[in-house]
Amino acid sequence: MSHAKSKATTIGELGEFGVIDRIQRMLGDAHGVVLGIGDDAAAIRPTPGKLLLATCDIQIEGRHFVKAHMSPEQLGRRSAAVNLSDIAAMGGQPTTALVSLALPNHTEARWVEQFYMGLRQALEAHGASIIGGNLSGGYSGIVVDITLHGEIDEPSMLRRSGATVGDAILVTGQLGSSAIGRQAIRAALPTAGAAGEPIRAHLEPKARVQEGQVIANSRLASAMIDLSDGLLADLSHMCQASGVGARVFLSQLPISRDTIQVAKDLNIKPVEAALHGGEDYELILACKGTAADRLIGAVQSDTGTPLTVFGEIIDEPGLRLVQPDGTEHAALPTGWDHFMEHTS
Amino acid sequence: MSHAKSKATTIGELGEFGVIDRIQRMLGDAHGVVLGIGDDAAAIRPTPGKLLLATCDIQIEGRHFVKAHMSPEQLGRRSAAVNLSDIAAMGGQPTTALVSLALPNHTEARWVEQFYMGLRQALEAHGASIIGGNLSGGYSGIVVDITLHGEIDEPSMLRRSGATVGDAILVTGQLGSSAIGRQAIRAALPTAGAAGEPIRAHLEPKARVQEGQVIANSRLASAMIDLSDGLLADLSHMCQASGVGARVFLSQLPISRDTIQVAKDLNIKPVEAALHGGEDYELILACKGTAADRLIGAVQSDTGTPLTVFGEIIDEPGLRLVQPDGTEHAALPTGWDHFMEHTS
Repeated sequence: MSHAKSKATTIGELGEFGVIDRIQRMLGDAHGVVLGIGDDAAAIRPTPGKLLLATCDIQIEGRHFVKAHMSPEQLGRRSAAVNLSDIAAMGGQPTTALVSLALPNHTEARWVEQFYMGLRQALEAHGASIIGGNLSGGYSGIVVDITLHGEIDEPSMLRRSGATVGDAILVTGQLGSSAIGRQAIRAALPTAGAAGEPIRAHLEPKARVQEGQVIANSRLASAMIDLSDGLLADLSHMCQASGVGARVFLSQLPISRDTIQVAKDLNIKPVEAALHGGEDYELILACKGTAADRLIGAVQSDTGTPLTVFGEIIDEPGLRLVQPDGTEHAALPTGWDHFMEHTS
Repeated sequence: MSHAKSKATTIGELGEFGVIDRIQRMLGDAHGVVLGIGDDAAAIRPTPGKLLLATCDIQIEGRHFVKAHMSPEQLGRRSAAVNLSDIAAMGGQPTTALVSLALPNHTEARWVEQFYMGLRQALEAHGASIIGGNLSGGYSGIVVDITLHGEIDEPSMLRRSGATVGDAILVTGQLGSSAIGRQAIRAALPTAGAAGEPIRAHLEPKARVQEGQVIANSRLASAMIDLSDGLLADLSHMCQASGVGARVFLSQLPISRDTIQVAKDLNIKPVEAALHGGEDYELILACKGTAADRLIGAVQSDTGTPLTVFGEIIDEPGLRLVQPDGTEHAALPTGWDHFMEHTS
């Protein structure tokens, strides 16, 4: 084609098809896929007897990420993680992904390749491969929209609904690190110090895919959701879907030592970051109180990830916060609503 | 939630979850879907024995459409059509869709609902339903990215590859209308006259879903692709995938009388619009010359859509154009490359 010039370095020079050719060569053929990148649609052979899961999540420059703060590989891994986390929240196994990418014409082809390398790496780490997508130029900012498929045995699938009065509420890993990391980046804190861990948590969140599968396969949990909007917002979604409420014990929220220290340096209350921060991509789940220890043990032994009880399901709708001194009050489920100003 | 104010009219006022609630109530539960809108991922039960098809296509304000030229219902139907067309090009049956929508905060909630109504209507007309997606505010322009699933019996699936030397090349419907319609809108031509048909073709392209299925089920075609980038560009994709070339008979290109008239009024050569215009969302396909009449008859009788022979597959790579006087020359496969200026 006339636009496939040699020595081209931007996608405007290479053209849509030039870039697609490069990506296709880079990615190769995905295992188990009947028809991958390069036709009008991709074709896969679903595993007989399993449900197919599907989720999508959009990342917009200036809204969900700042290009200058993130390498293309990091953006790729992050774009994978936010979708992997949704499949994890069902207890599913990620399988295949479609990638929509809209870019300014001045974007370097090398940037696009590095983005795809990060994306592929993060997906492959969980057994998923890229099977299609599209690329569109001439845009003012970067837009990444990924659809991720997964699969699961129907009886293992965990929904948001299903939490029952008396259930314990648990969370994987730790809370508030991503929000503190975002503020640490804005404050230009050095990554060499305590800010390193929260900054990494923000730039490269890890989806709890294996943890979600262990929890689902245990058949001990009654409901599960991933943490994207914030602990209270997402817990509220789970409670509303289940027709229940919840009591949150603030003294039991797992927050890392580094996150606490950096939060204090930034004059942010760590507990506020944990409750409202969002983008932690941990899993919260409900299970019978008597099963909590078994579930904690199973997740710890199979994945090494801590699972912490921080609340209980109650009959009364809404969320109640229990202070360290035992006093209790109603909470508003404010969190990272994508139309609202961030509250932490 | 505190942001679900009464009398709210913009998505900035309603908030992400307020708008999602409205859409969820509006769409209801999709038939045959295990888990639809409202959980971390959707879950579907694939039809045993069938392949699952998946495609995605992004529509960006200012790049793929002008908001002032298009009603929200039209944008919804158009966003559906460009994806339905990809499933049609495989011969597949559309099934389920995920919708990513990024919007400016000042977008009216009514606009979003009307967009979804148009989208749902166009999908349901072909048996597909919306099972999930996401909504993101705070953006400078509208971005619509839709992933559409379909299914097909593997032996019926038509790829881009498979065209064989000597095959006839056919196209459904008519060519160039969308490109002329786009220019007619820019020139503010009245829709009451001859420009009505090309303007409708541009604003509300029809995906050839039923035609694609008739062609695939006939088992008479060797390769198929849909027309999004332009006849020469997409024919070139089909030929490259098949390792062949093609000869195009310019006098045989099907162009509607209205499109020819409006093209001439706009000082555009109709044949240029047909070759390079793009966005016609017709299907081009190859089949043995001896099978062409049977295929034309089957599509005509089952769908009422004309199918026209306009070329033949040749051994020599590349495309050759045959003028009405019989002279022949090589063509460059220029078309609607999304990074390039449009050539027509």
